[in-house]
Amino acid sequence: MGRPRTPLLDRERITTAALALVDEQGEVSLPQIARRLGVQTGSLYHHVDGREGVIELIREHVSYRIDSSMLDLPPWDEALAGWARSYRAAFAAHPRAIPLLLATPVRTPRVLGQYEQAVRMLNEAGFALREVLTMITAVENLIFGSALDLAAPDPIWDLSDQSGTPALSQAMAAAPPTRADDAFELALAACLAHFKSR
Amino acid sequence: MGRPRTPLLDRERITTAALALVDEQGEVSLPQIARRLGVQTGSLYHHVDGREGVIELIREHVSYRIDSSMLDLPPWDEALAGWARSYRAAFAAHPRAIPLLLATPVRTPRVLGQYEQAVRMLNEAGFALREVLTMITAVENLIFGSALDLAAPDPIWDLSDQSGTPALSQAMAAAPPTRADDAFELALAACLAHFKSR
Repeated sequence: MGRPRTPLLDRERITTAALALVDEQGEVSLPQIARRLGVQTGSLYHHVDGREGVIELIREHVSYRIDSSMLDLPPWDEALAGWARSYRAAFAAHPRAIPLLLATPVRTPRVLGQYEQAVRMLNEAGFALREVLTMITAVENLIFGSALDLAAPDPIWDLSDQSGTPALSQAMAAAPPTRADDAFELALAACLAHFKSR
Repeated sequence: MGRPRTPLLDRERITTAALALVDEQGEVSLPQIARRLGVQTGSLYHHVDGREGVIELIREHVSYRIDSSMLDLPPWDEALAGWARSYRAAFAAHPRAIPLLLATPVRTPRVLGQYEQAVRMLNEAGFALREVLTMITAVENLIFGSALDLAAPDPIWDLSDQSGTPALSQAMAAAPPTRADDAFELALAACLAHFKSR
């Protein structure tokens, strides 16, 4: 009997199964991935370095959608804003992966390379090296929070009984339908303006 | 036989079990809660309105730690900043609850009451009703992202091989140990300054 033409297991299939599990349940384990792929759990270890290796595969997959090319295009504020928008869109597609990815050290060379690019770009724009990671983290806080907000139901506030919350009720009626996008752009513009003033 | 003095089941016990499950695995189901409490799943329905009811119990518990009293103390920027700091601390204690809470409509009267307070405070400070929910959402993006960042490992970036990322490596060495707190305060100050300028 010859070998099957399609391998039963490769990193791409493991990534797809792992990400589907995270999207469904906010967590992933090697036995669950193995069950979904119809293989033994032990076979997974030939392809990935345990659970942390699986998390890095997910990080690589999600981050692949981030367009970091603009980090090389000055001016720094437009570069940072373009990167942040693309970063937010990539993570908004997999909100439940966010806590897992944030709780695990970043090892993926592709993602480390993006931080290298961002650090270098801000440093060349005149920001001190001791400040740049704080600035990047500030923008990332906003990105992750907003990516989670995009998964929120509409409306967020269920005012079946409006008697106790008349101002909230009026504010909801007056708020634009683009509230989530507007909030992200508002905080992003705030950060960029504040960085400029330093 | 008399009734037991301590009821086998109440909302507080359900909340504690549900939150422990969310902290461990990022998800919760009624059968899991029932198993942990040693009761039948059906019994839970006498106390909570299904899974969404459980999520609201968790929201109520986590939000209980937010000090919203300062929302009544002008000036508006200090009131909003104090509320945001307290809000971040409450959610940082349960980062894995964040995606679940954001994916479910807010029904808890206590939490709706906090939004009512914040909307009213900003409106009385001179901001238009159509703007206030966008402003509050912008600050919440930052709060949720930063609360998740507080659960991140230190260091976040695992540079076993620093050859490809010399600038990131230098920035990490130069960054203050308070990077996470600094980033939150930086973005918060940015938002408040930007709101003032509108």
